[in-house]
Amino acid sequence: MIQAGILGATGYAGQQLIWFLLRHPSIRLNFLSSHNHTDISFHHIYQQYAGFIQNVCIDMHAAEEKLSDIDVLFIALPHGKAFDITKKALDLGVKVIDLGADFRLKSADAYKAWYGLEHEAEHLLSTAVYGLPEIYRDQIPTASLVANPGCYPTASILALAPLLKNHLIDPASIIIDAKSGVSGAGRAANIATLFTECNESIKAYGVASHRHTPEIEEILATLYGKELVISFTPHLVPMNRGILATCYGNLLEKQSQSQLYEIYNAYYQDEYFVRIVETLPETRWVKGSNLCDIGVKVDERTGRVIVVSAIDNLIKGAAGQAVQNMNLMFGFKEQESLDVLSMTP
Amino acid sequence: MIQAGILGATGYAGQQLIWFLLRHPSIRLNFLSSHNHTDISFHHIYQQYAGFIQNVCIDMHAAEEKLSDIDVLFIALPHGKAFDITKKALDLGVKVIDLGADFRLKSADAYKAWYGLEHEAEHLLSTAVYGLPEIYRDQIPTASLVANPGCYPTASILALAPLLKNHLIDPASIIIDAKSGVSGAGRAANIATLFTECNESIKAYGVASHRHTPEIEEILATLYGKELVISFTPHLVPMNRGILATCYGNLLEKQSQSQLYEIYNAYYQDEYFVRIVETLPETRWVKGSNLCDIGVKVDERTGRVIVVSAIDNLIKGAAGQAVQNMNLMFGFKEQESLDVLSMTP
Amino acid sequence: MIQAGILGATGYAGQQLIWFLLRHPSIRLNFLSSHNHTDISFHHIYQQYAGFIQNVCIDMHAAEEKLSDIDVLFIALPHGKAFDITKKALDLGVKVIDLGADFRLKSADAYKAWYGLEHEAEHLLSTAVYGLPEIYRDQIPTASLVANPGCYPTASILALAPLLKNHLIDPASIIIDAKSGVSGAGRAANIATLFTECNESIKAYGVASHRHTPEIEEILATLYGKELVISFTPHLVPMNRGILATCYGNLLEKQSQSQLYEIYNAYYQDEYFVRIVETLPETRWVKGSNLCDIGVKVDERTGRVIVVSAIDNLIKGAAGQAVQNMNLMFGFKEQESLDVLSMTP
Amino acid sequence: MIQAGILGATGYAGQQLIWFLLRHPSIRLNFLSSHNHTDISFHHIYQQYAGFIQNVCIDMHAAEEKLSDIDVLFIALPHGKAFDITKKALDLGVKVIDLGADFRLKSADAYKAWYGLEHEAEHLLSTAVYGLPEIYRDQIPTASLVANPGCYPTASILALAPLLKNHLIDPASIIIDAKSGVSGAGRAANIATLFTECNESIKAYGVASHRHTPEIEEILATLYGKELVISFTPHLVPMNRGILATCYGNLLEKQSQSQLYEIYNAYYQDEYFVRIVETLPETRWVKGSNLCDIGVKVDERTGRVIVVSAIDNLIKGAAGQAVQNMNLMFGFKEQESLDVLSMTP
Repeated sequence: MIQAGILGATGYAGQQLIWFLLRHPSIRLNFLSSHNHTDISFHHIYQQYAGFIQNVCIDMHAAEEKLSDIDVLFIALPHGKAFDITKKALDLGVKVIDLGADFRLKSADAYKAWYGLEHEAEHLLSTAVYGLPEIYRDQIPTASLVANPGCYPTASILALAPLLKNHLIDPASIIIDAKSGVSGAGRAANIATLFTECNESIKAYGVASHRHTPEIEEILATLYGKELVISFTPHLVPMNRGILATCYGNLLEKQSQSQLYEIYNAYYQDEYFVRIVETLPETRWVKGSNLCDIGVKVDERTGRVIVVSAIDNLIKGAAGQAVQNMNLMFGFKEQESLDVLSMTP
Repeated sequence: MIQAGILGATGYAGQQLIWFLLRHPSIRLNFLSSHNHTDISFHHIYQQYAGFIQNVCIDMHAAEEKLSDIDVLFIALPHGKAFDITKKALDLGVKVIDLGADFRLKSADAYKAWYGLEHEAEHLLSTAVYGLPEIYRDQIPTASLVANPGCYPTASILALAPLLKNHLIDPASIIIDAKSGVSGAGRAANIATLFTECNESIKAYGVASHRHTPEIEEILATLYGKELVISFTPHLVPMNRGILATCYGNLLEKQSQSQLYEIYNAYYQDEYFVRIVETLPETRWVKGSNLCDIGVKVDERTGRVIVVSAIDNLIKGAAGQAVQNMNLMFGFKEQESLDVLSMTP
Repeated sequence: MIQAGILGATGYAGQQLIWFLLRHPSIRLNFLSSHNHTDISFHHIYQQYAGFIQNVCIDMHAAEEKLSDIDVLFIALPHGKAFDITKKALDLGVKVIDLGADFRLKSADAYKAWYGLEHEAEHLLSTAVYGLPEIYRDQIPTASLVANPGCYPTASILALAPLLKNHLIDPASIIIDAKSGVSGAGRAANIATLFTECNESIKAYGVASHRHTPEIEEILATLYGKELVISFTPHLVPMNRGILATCYGNLLEKQSQSQLYEIYNAYYQDEYFVRIVETLPETRWVKGSNLCDIGVKVDERTGRVIVVSAIDNLIKGAAGQAVQNMNLMFGFKEQESLDVLSMTP
Repeated sequence: MIQAGILGATGYAGQQLIWFLLRHPSIRLNFLSSHNHTDISFHHIYQQYAGFIQNVCIDMHAAEEKLSDIDVLFIALPHGKAFDITKKALDLGVKVIDLGADFRLKSADAYKAWYGLEHEAEHLLSTAVYGLPEIYRDQIPTASLVANPGCYPTASILALAPLLKNHLIDPASIIIDAKSGVSGAGRAANIATLFTECNESIKAYGVASHRHTPEIEEILATLYGKELVISFTPHLVPMNRGILATCYGNLLEKQSQSQLYEIYNAYYQDEYFVRIVETLPETRWVKGSNLCDIGVKVDERTGRVIVVSAIDNLIKGAAGQAVQNMNLMFGFKEQESLDVLSMTP
């Protein structure tokens, strides 16, 4: 039985992680920490767990003391909060999966430029593995530190990977117009995410400046084999969950609709969690699941390809992917406990 | 392996049933029928199943021909459509679980009065068991025909059963003010349930005339030991799923808050799917699960008790309860495949 | 030109008030105060006003200094905050319309019991007029202090007034089951009203303890001519605006559906803002308007009458009613600037 | 007093038109026609109008007979339905404002290619004026036939006009990623737009094939002075109203943020209904109004400009713009009856 600790258990990603870990036959929840809800029973915050989980949330200090009892540490904290605890955990031989942004970029300078903070664990950046199994499955099993991808990067990279890997589009033409449900903004008291402020409205935010931009660029550049810059525009949509990424690129050579389907199907043929769909994805079909649906459309009039991908931002975009990574790191079946389909409506 | 057939597979209750049956280790989906989507792959209608289910929907006639291949028939059809097929199935020794209304009332006259149709299988009414396991668990295992309760009755009866069984309230004082998500209205093209007609509004409907009224009265009367009439008012709420039933009754004798909690806890102490909650239920904590949460509040100023219950209308109010009944009928663990907790937000 | 000052301009009720006052041909906005947004342009908070209003929010102290410049003061502050400023305004001959709860109850003891605060302007309670024009139209024109009713009381009292005035129901049987959109909870940073916490869920709250209970009881008792207690249960519904009140009472004598319609039509025959509707009200038909729709249904089986009323909680339940009161107090046409119909969908 | 007739009065655009015309001091509603609700009182369909409008819907034939009584005919019918009636109306000297697509494209061939129908009034195409007053204000006053723009084209063209008119971007680089509320899909019984099918999900549709594409291209080409093709991707968002258009273009020369603001402010300096906003637009700030909010952002890393525009699809995107056109055609003040601000939340 693997012992797991969770830091930031009462955030939306943290609690989603617990949802999956509870179902996992080989995992025991050793501790849950929460900055805002220390000493409160977890099921008082998330009442769906009443009768099913007894853990009381502990604080970070108590969590540190329990590091030696666990095998894997999940960190679901705001950026800048994972440096110390990650070092301590790794020193004790505990594997770390960070759902935050602290180990996603390869360069401390880029981290500082986009996040406005000094990186305090720069030496770990080279060992951290970017936890997108569909791209880095070979490196994850042996990693001791996995940087779980951002929600937007997961949807965006999976949508564009086959095109870049196969050099089918001009990288300078890439535009990613993404739309997210409100849970992506987290569970903090905030006027901007009140029901009455979000409902019945849509807006763009972080235009030309969102922190997921360099993360997407870095991985796409690796796939393409050369530096690239993209435009990335996130939007806030009045729904709880889901990301839809509409990605545009100029085809270098004419491709037919069926050629592109072949390329996508081939690229993802062994992937359990990626589905190439005949129609266009809708977030409802993946909500509640770890799946990523991808649809591809050639626009013959403009010579562009438009790729649309859909994920559940809290699952394939956060907690589900973290469990997928854990499964790989500990030698479990990759889809263990993750074989949940969207429940609609 | 138990072979199951589903009539009305593409309705919201039918497809929810499939969601659970797919997870069930002892069930094989033998056929899915759909009046509106005959010859169409089920996963073209509900795309979350793409890659996970291959069944093509058949029509009722083809379904009839396959009755001899199955062990259990789930019927998720509009009322009035279950008579013939139920007779045929029972004649072949197939167990039947009807999610519709055709076998819920004990009297054909009441059926005609409330549903406006002649009952065409009156002889089966006495053998049909009302499939609310928390009340009729002793009769369900040996039943060949189970009438799966309506969604509102499930929430209402579970909320009021301890009070009536213990004769704590005046039955003439019972008012049930219930609120349902839009999925309760089904998946038919209908202006009244368009997004733009339901969103940002709430309304009462079927006031003093809703068909679930006699069903609630009949079961409550059995618990109480005497005929009774109630007021039942359903409302349509702009959300996909969930029923909240706010139930009022005049206490015959003064009861304290803690006495009532004791009574409720005792009444449901062995129930996996009923939770007596300390605070007040919210539908989000049970959405996606087969649970029913119940909260109780004494109003000392008026001498009333107010009981609030919450269920997922498509699960404990339909498909989940049907699987719970099937588990009892076939000797499986009652919560088999139903141990899913609400995934929020 | 009447000069108006608004305290609490950036709350949802305050800004709704501004929406109406801007349209009013006889009103000039003299000042807007905001505790949380002092020195910020109002249109930076509510961007629909960009280009249409230039006011910068001032603080309470600055507002006090401007009292002598205005004719009417609208107070849209939390309870307990209106005592001092009301006294100062009245001393200067400024008419006051308080949208909060501080002057709604006639007894300082009741205020303390339900609001947990000493009433610091008890001497004003007898002069304050309850600002429900449909009931107190004769007293409002000469009032210097109007206590604008709560949102739930407005919907509840208008629904039940004809029954109580005509002694048609047993007052001990009254149950009001009310449902509100989330704007009723105000515009404060609060986890409980985040989009992700309210969306796709319904809950009851304040059961047997909500502060609008004594307010409803006091006015209904006046109409009935005798003390009474009621059960009042509010619910939170995932929509921005609207209150639906479903009210139950036991008829003292049999009444037909048409008799009740006659009674309601007669009672409200001269009211511009009350509509007796043939079908049942839905909040969408009054959203954005100052109207109150009322439907009546006799339940012959139980001898009850069920009255359903619908209002927009921020308009007839707050700011619109405040303007209606102002119109009466200053001799304008009662519906001046309030003749706006719901814009659907 | 101008007499107006409305064809298609019970669609969402038609009824929105009535909302504005009712407020208009110089307009009398002569007749309302409805294919689906002939002989039904309009206020039975849209109950906000109960007590405020008595018109009974007539059919198309009856409407034709009344053409000689009216001065202006608004047509809010599906494409292909406006040909005949427009000819008849024009012959009688009645001015026509068509909210549908039949007279928007300048070429009958393009119409056939995108709409799949023969154009049956080709001779009128040259006289029809495209009713976007911010672009064609000089031609509208003397027009007898105005083709009211589509909702997406209105948002898209207003967003991009200053860039194309000033030749600031490469037209081959234009991508418009637009998001619409569900009312854009109309008020027809349709499974795809049921609450339960749209809520909690977002999808793209009509990718590389939406009929508004040639309309956008045609007007942008006129502004630019040369043919161009664009990529246009619409999305369906779970909200009633609103369009947000996120538009991308490659700057031909470096422009600063403030230079672009100057250009936009100059271009729209005399426009009542266009606001250049300092932050980014959100649909809630224009919902219920005839305004179009536009924000501009330079992405220095990629050399792109990103322009975001927001409108209410039923108002500036349909009925409000139709009234704006009518005001121009009849010499009324352009904003007459349209000076309504968004009411939030």
